[in-house]
Amino acid sequence: MIVAVLMGSESDDPKLKAVFETLDAFGVESEKRVISAHRAPAFLAAYVSEAPRRGVAVFICAAGLAAHLAGAVAAQTHLPVIGIPIKSGALDGLDALLSTVQMPPGVPVATVGIDGAKNAALLAIQMLALSDEALAEKVRRYKQEMADAIASKNPS
Amino acid sequence: MIVAVLMGSESDDPKLKAVFETLDAFGVESEKRVISAHRAPAFLAAYVSEAPRRGVAVFICAAGLAAHLAGAVAAQTHLPVIGIPIKSGALDGLDALLSTVQMPPGVPVATVGIDGAKNAALLAIQMLALSDEALAEKVRRYKQEMADAIASKNPS
Amino acid sequence: MIVAVLMGSESDDPKLKAVFETLDAFGVESEKRVISAHRAPAFLAAYVSEAPRRGVAVFICAAGLAAHLAGAVAAQTHLPVIGIPIKSGALDGLDALLSTVQMPPGVPVATVGIDGAKNAALLAIQMLALSDEALAEKVRRYKQEMADAIASKNPS
Amino acid sequence: MIVAVLMGSESDDPKLKAVFETLDAFGVESEKRVISAHRAPAFLAAYVSEAPRRGVAVFICAAGLAAHLAGAVAAQTHLPVIGIPIKSGALDGLDALLSTVQMPPGVPVATVGIDGAKNAALLAIQMLALSDEALAEKVRRYKQEMADAIASKNPS
Amino acid sequence: MIVAVLMGSESDDPKLKAVFETLDAFGVESEKRVISAHRAPAFLAAYVSEAPRRGVAVFICAAGLAAHLAGAVAAQTHLPVIGIPIKSGALDGLDALLSTVQMPPGVPVATVGIDGAKNAALLAIQMLALSDEALAEKVRRYKQEMADAIASKNPS
Amino acid sequence: MIVAVLMGSESDDPKLKAVFETLDAFGVESEKRVISAHRAPAFLAAYVSEAPRRGVAVFICAAGLAAHLAGAVAAQTHLPVIGIPIKSGALDGLDALLSTVQMPPGVPVATVGIDGAKNAALLAIQMLALSDEALAEKVRRYKQEMADAIASKNPS
Amino acid sequence: MIVAVLMGSESDDPKLKAVFETLDAFGVESEKRVISAHRAPAFLAAYVSEAPRRGVAVFICAAGLAAHLAGAVAAQTHLPVIGIPIKSGALDGLDALLSTVQMPPGVPVATVGIDGAKNAALLAIQMLALSDEALAEKVRRYKQEMADAIASKNPS
Amino acid sequence: MIVAVLMGSESDDPKLKAVFETLDAFGVESEKRVISAHRAPAFLAAYVSEAPRRGVAVFICAAGLAAHLAGAVAAQTHLPVIGIPIKSGALDGLDALLSTVQMPPGVPVATVGIDGAKNAALLAIQMLALSDEALAEKVRRYKQEMADAIASKNPS
Repeated sequence: MIVAVLMGSESDDPKLKAVFETLDAFGVESEKRVISAHRAPAFLAAYVSEAPRRGVAVFICAAGLAAHLAGAVAAQTHLPVIGIPIKSGALDGLDALLSTVQMPPGVPVATVGIDGAKNAALLAIQMLALSDEALAEKVRRYKQEMADAIASKNPS
Repeated sequence: MIVAVLMGSESDDPKLKAVFETLDAFGVESEKRVISAHRAPAFLAAYVSEAPRRGVAVFICAAGLAAHLAGAVAAQTHLPVIGIPIKSGALDGLDALLSTVQMPPGVPVATVGIDGAKNAALLAIQMLALSDEALAEKVRRYKQEMADAIASKNPS
Repeated sequence: MIVAVLMGSESDDPKLKAVFETLDAFGVESEKRVISAHRAPAFLAAYVSEAPRRGVAVFICAAGLAAHLAGAVAAQTHLPVIGIPIKSGALDGLDALLSTVQMPPGVPVATVGIDGAKNAALLAIQMLALSDEALAEKVRRYKQEMADAIASKNPS
Repeated sequence: MIVAVLMGSESDDPKLKAVFETLDAFGVESEKRVISAHRAPAFLAAYVSEAPRRGVAVFICAAGLAAHLAGAVAAQTHLPVIGIPIKSGALDGLDALLSTVQMPPGVPVATVGIDGAKNAALLAIQMLALSDEALAEKVRRYKQEMADAIASKNPS
Repeated sequence: MIVAVLMGSESDDPKLKAVFETLDAFGVESEKRVISAHRAPAFLAAYVSEAPRRGVAVFICAAGLAAHLAGAVAAQTHLPVIGIPIKSGALDGLDALLSTVQMPPGVPVATVGIDGAKNAALLAIQMLALSDEALAEKVRRYKQEMADAIASKNPS
Repeated sequence: MIVAVLMGSESDDPKLKAVFETLDAFGVESEKRVISAHRAPAFLAAYVSEAPRRGVAVFICAAGLAAHLAGAVAAQTHLPVIGIPIKSGALDGLDALLSTVQMPPGVPVATVGIDGAKNAALLAIQMLALSDEALAEKVRRYKQEMADAIASKNPS
Repeated sequence: MIVAVLMGSESDDPKLKAVFETLDAFGVESEKRVISAHRAPAFLAAYVSEAPRRGVAVFICAAGLAAHLAGAVAAQTHLPVIGIPIKSGALDGLDALLSTVQMPPGVPVATVGIDGAKNAALLAIQMLALSDEALAEKVRRYKQEMADAIASKNPS
Repeated sequence: MIVAVLMGSESDDPKLKAVFETLDAFGVESEKRVISAHRAPAFLAAYVSEAPRRGVAVFICAAGLAAHLAGAVAAQTHLPVIGIPIKSGALDGLDALLSTVQMPPGVPVATVGIDGAKNAALLAIQMLALSDEALAEKVRRYKQEMADAIASKNPS
């Protein structure tokens, strides 16, 4: 199962490094696309409709401003869609957050925090782990390591 | 030339009464559609692509929450698109305003105020009046009447 | 697989009706708990740790104000957690939205819109459908019905 | 037909480069004025009233803070007025956005996003293209090129 | 010396009752006008330019939404202008507050709180009292009475 | 008549340069004090009560964060008080703006925009000009020069 | 030790019922005053300076709008001051929250949530319990009862 | 009595320097821990439950984003908890402020301003001074010194 990572603009690429690093670290396959809901709507529709045939199971969509990318993908697939609001422009991502999370009934987007690249990847992994016990075990170990790292910073 | 008036949900209909009343008062033809960018994206694409053939020249799109309707139409037409952010939900339309106005470069939406139904119609009329002197004259008269109404409320 | 639906306060119950209706409509089993992250932290920890043994696969957590419930559950499980910010108090849910979505790296919460009960359920269903083709087919049919309903409201 | 581009302050000039570049690229004539609604109201009134005689058909008005420029022009003309809220001062353009878009019924301003110079120009072009098929064709080609550029960034 | 009280719309009249009551209580003459900066800009200009000849010394301007009335008056007079942002529309007066207070350098508006009718009147009175010792004495007495009223509500 | 300029912290001094420059340019006398409403309330009370005897007629108060300085002065004088919200801290002056402008009925503060040093001075000057025709003439000339400066930047 | 409960206006009284009920339930003595920082600053100063002699150990201050009451008390006492921002006016308490919590270094106010009457009382009790083991035991029992109440609402 | 200072992330350490400096200056003992409510909930629970035995009497908790640390500690102790919202991420601490202060009834957090390190320490000191007259005297002297410092900056 593949996680498709879509960004509205190439300039968002550096902000999404943690998505790919995290998916890689958990051994989850991914593919990257630069697709704008506004500038290439037909290309987006074509991509979303054929992606499942290639094994895409979850979409992660990152966009700034009036961030419609995640919503546009969610409108065209039955698969879960995770939205990352990107901080950009004068409003620092508040517009992107509201444009991503405030979806109308019937078309959910699983929204993470502004610039929440790592959490988007972890959320996709948690979804895939529902039917992959080995992956689930990796998530449990990851959480244990976070806890241990905290403990090691404090007097025992 | 026809003004197409799209709403994301039938429940927005009462808020759009002023759109139709204003277009009617200026003798501008309109057509009404209930089309959700999220719930019926293929229908939206089909409608937007064939509308110009029927004479649609301007789109007015009203939606609340993560209001993507105007942006989705603008993505698929070369015609001007006017967006009305609708007040609804917990954030009272601030989400709809930002989702409508903060479009990325290349795909403008001419945004009016929250619930700004009358102004959306007037803006469409002003656009059509660019090549219709009789309509332009009606706009000038309308503005004069507004000014006269103010004057009549005050001592001369 | 069971979807656990947690609410921070019994007063949120009416707002969550759509969660249970939607899960029922898709034939997905659920269980309901009233658990406050602030008033009963030990009870919460116990519940979250034993829930998976009973078949709980996804958590939906609804809370208002400084809404920590989803985050507190996410801190204690490797399973996906969906957060519903509830509109309540003076700030109408903006506080709950930010408290739910702005999680630190490592502990994601899949956040839906304010009072987004139906979408939380649909998102849980989409997650479970990743390994349940019959459920996936129901989601596809549901989306088709939404699109058909839109089409039927417009002239063909 | 000329697009008049007004700015509230000379310091906004660099932010408006994309307006002139875009109008030029589409072969649309423009004129530039530095006019403050607050510091030179009589000059503004004189300019707006005589501009149409020179062929001005659309106004683009850019201003920051309590941005009244677009509204003041719209009050005095029957022609369409496009407002660009400029990011400046402590509130980063949120004040300018609200001051520009929240116009009272009767006097619309077609508002684009904060610092949305390029989109303001495109919107003016779309308006003029309503009665200029050659210009309309250029807009369609521009949109196609945007879509092609996206496609070229992805595997075919 | 007269205080001119301008409102952008007749519907604001009930909110301004406290302006007139307060001015009356202090024996300060006032005149009321319904003048929109957007719908009757020429009428506004004429009124502001001749008002001082009749004895107007201070303007109080109340408006909602993209509240430009106070700013438009301030642009055209050397006299002090007090702005009252009116709560109306979807944003509850936040738009009016920012549109009124965030004026560019050179054209101040003395802004009071949202719906701050009484304070606008008191501020005008304080300005006039700078050269009217009897009025100054009334202000001092008013403040003493407020303090006494507080004291009387508490155990001595 | 003297304009007293109070700042809550010495660090605000550079932001207030335009206050003194503007008062100087109009030949209005001023005095400067660093007085915190929170750190030196008794000193503040003493200063405000004796200032009028020295000729202070208007107070300008600049403060950031929970900016209470203007309100605290207004509570203790019958003279007009002008508040300048200072941009500082995480919220960039929005807190200072609301803390300054949203005064309860009975105690107005004439609020200017965030960091609005020049406008605070001009507002004080306009107040003093109510009873000083020579000063009023200077304000009229200042406004004319602003208008002329705009005109000179545009083709005649 | 007495908890002094101050409110800026008598109209806030109903919102503070939970303060007195909670203090009573824990057997903590209280006194109530209606004192405005803006309308009766001298009375406030006198009250705050003599209160400790009567046994007042903690102040709870409730106010709306530009809520300066807690800050004004904190400026004049070495005792801990708890601030309750009250929801009122057009901004629903956001102004009161920022005016109360964003205090400058040196003068803290322990701020609770908007309309957080019960929590203000509990916080005062927790402070007093630092040196009163019987009171501390009551707090522990209260927390246990909250936890038990949650548990009783769920299947065991 | 010890003040425990907890931070959600080591990166917050520089922002908390003023906490330790202030506690030291007043001779109050402190201990520092890096504990995340989200990444190490069990460690947090263990720490909070055993801290009182070592003499911890007050907790100061600093966290950014969806800042749950203070709330999570408050949920598990009867002792007073002070929350410092940390400015970080795209929203500059507004999310942390609301996540910290808007606690549900029954579980108060004494919230100081964003990045309010010094005030958090002073508030803790004021609480401890309720039963420590020597410490209370230090607070009174500290306040006197602040007032004297202000006075010394002004003409006598």
